[in-house]
Amino acid sequence: MKELVERVKGSPIIGVIGASECGKDVYEQAYEVGRLIAGRGAILICGGMGGVMEGASQGAYEAGGLTIGVVPGFSAADANPYIAVPIVTGLSHARNVIIVRTSQVAIAISGSYGTLSEVSFALTLNKPVISLGSWDFDDKIIRASSPQEAVDKAFKVIER
Amino acid sequence: MKELVERVKGSPIIGVIGASECGKDVYEQAYEVGRLIAGRGAILICGGMGGVMEGASQGAYEAGGLTIGVVPGFSAADANPYIAVPIVTGLSHARNVIIVRTSQVAIAISGSYGTLSEVSFALTLNKPVISLGSWDFDDKIIRASSPQEAVDKAFKVIER
Amino acid sequence: MKELVERVKGSPIIGVIGASECGKDVYEQAYEVGRLIAGRGAILICGGMGGVMEGASQGAYEAGGLTIGVVPGFSAADANPYIAVPIVTGLSHARNVIIVRTSQVAIAISGSYGTLSEVSFALTLNKPVISLGSWDFDDKIIRASSPQEAVDKAFKVIER
Amino acid sequence: MKELVERVKGSPIIGVIGASECGKDVYEQAYEVGRLIAGRGAILICGGMGGVMEGASQGAYEAGGLTIGVVPGFSAADANPYIAVPIVTGLSHARNVIIVRTSQVAIAISGSYGTLSEVSFALTLNKPVISLGSWDFDDKIIRASSPQEAVDKAFKVIER
Repeated sequence: MKELVERVKGSPIIGVIGASECGKDVYEQAYEVGRLIAGRGAILICGGMGGVMEGASQGAYEAGGLTIGVVPGFSAADANPYIAVPIVTGLSHARNVIIVRTSQVAIAISGSYGTLSEVSFALTLNKPVISLGSWDFDDKIIRASSPQEAVDKAFKVIER
Repeated sequence: MKELVERVKGSPIIGVIGASECGKDVYEQAYEVGRLIAGRGAILICGGMGGVMEGASQGAYEAGGLTIGVVPGFSAADANPYIAVPIVTGLSHARNVIIVRTSQVAIAISGSYGTLSEVSFALTLNKPVISLGSWDFDDKIIRASSPQEAVDKAFKVIER
Repeated sequence: MKELVERVKGSPIIGVIGASECGKDVYEQAYEVGRLIAGRGAILICGGMGGVMEGASQGAYEAGGLTIGVVPGFSAADANPYIAVPIVTGLSHARNVIIVRTSQVAIAISGSYGTLSEVSFALTLNKPVISLGSWDFDDKIIRASSPQEAVDKAFKVIER
Repeated sequence: MKELVERVKGSPIIGVIGASECGKDVYEQAYEVGRLIAGRGAILICGGMGGVMEGASQGAYEAGGLTIGVVPGFSAADANPYIAVPIVTGLSHARNVIIVRTSQVAIAISGSYGTLSEVSFALTLNKPVISLGSWDFDDKIIRASSPQEAVDKAFKVIER
């Protein structure tokens, strides 16, 4: 256990943001992003709910990665089944700020207005954002066309 | 790595609350509480700063336990050196609510008004609180006179 | 209208904290506290819900005072009928911090653990607290035995 | 005073969102928006700081309107000089959620990423947003080309 925790402490924390409901294709993309994040030794943080958050959590968790879910409601039971550590906020949408602040880089996958609020918080805080089929209205948003490219770019940004 | 994350997922989460500055004796008590929490396989969550929070984090971390620090400020660098996963909130004192909501049981060690706000949130939310030389104005607060007794009682409450 | 808003701008803001359910006697005390706060030209801020909060709001509102309710939920309709300006937070208990930070002095009336969390936040932030039949475990808490005394002491503290 | 407060209680609450720094032209637009909001009897809520927030506050305040500033920091003294009631949150950017939740409609004026986070929260919560030279990437955002048009459309939306 000691080794695990030492490894965790040195690991980057990558946020995955996206909608709590999504189709099968987007879920699979999110799964792949999560799997690659964990495969390269990073911690996944997300909003802990369904859809893109669940896809990414499942991918990371099944690859042996640590998954943190910052849930909006009042109970750890709200978290999807692949969240290893649920952080229970009771803050509703305001918890989005915490996900962005805690991530060193965020990968946005598909998503709608909730995702946009996280993307814009990231831009406000000068935190890098990768868009995989998500919002890309601004030059500061880094585009990626596949899960592999998204995760590669996320690590490149962190290592800079 | 996979087994280890599975173990994390099944682990109870125990909060340690107390002041960000403390004397040597209280630090040692907090260290011992952290060490015992980790030794019995639970995750430690705290406010991530100095004093009691740092003592408990050091004890848990050195015993191979996972340590989560919910920091009030804007940077992961604010966390004490024994925090494996810093959750960065930017919410100042309001982050206390998150620590209490996330913990299955909280151990209060010494502490002053900030600690009291967490103890009272725990009481509000019907979450069990163990007091080790901390506030004990209410029958719902479970008293303990040593780190060992505090952690024993915390696990007893969880297993109920 | 202009003069009135200028008067509002120069007015002290006094918090009233207490439980969302209470008996008739406590409600009447809260009503009287609210009435006196408004009568002396201060703005009342509270959690906006029932019980003590409603009593104080009714007293202040009926005396022509401005009443601000910082509600924990998602809708202005949650506010009691005497709140002139509902501030809708969606932050649940974390909204207590806002009430304390916004008040220049807080008057605690009766109340239980939720009230205690506000009293302890006030003590943490070095904000004066008057207790009218509420928590008084600490020398920094100023005791009052009647609504009149509570409001007198609140204004004395502000004018210092 | 009683009449004022009764009038306040029945008044709509309109949010103005925009950057804390802005040029003279944008400041004048914001001033005009604030003036018209107050002139039609609504309460202005904003983030309480400089730039667009100050322009709108000044316009509303000088027209005799009630101005509420939900400030991100720890002190009422952070509020611009035209805020009649400062709500002090200590929540940094997370306070944006409160402004959006409290407004019945929001008018975005110019602005950058911080404004975008508020626009996207509004869209998430199905709250109408008017854009005056601000973000307009979405069909749900109502465009306006002058302060008059923005305020007209805001009232039209409320009265619906």
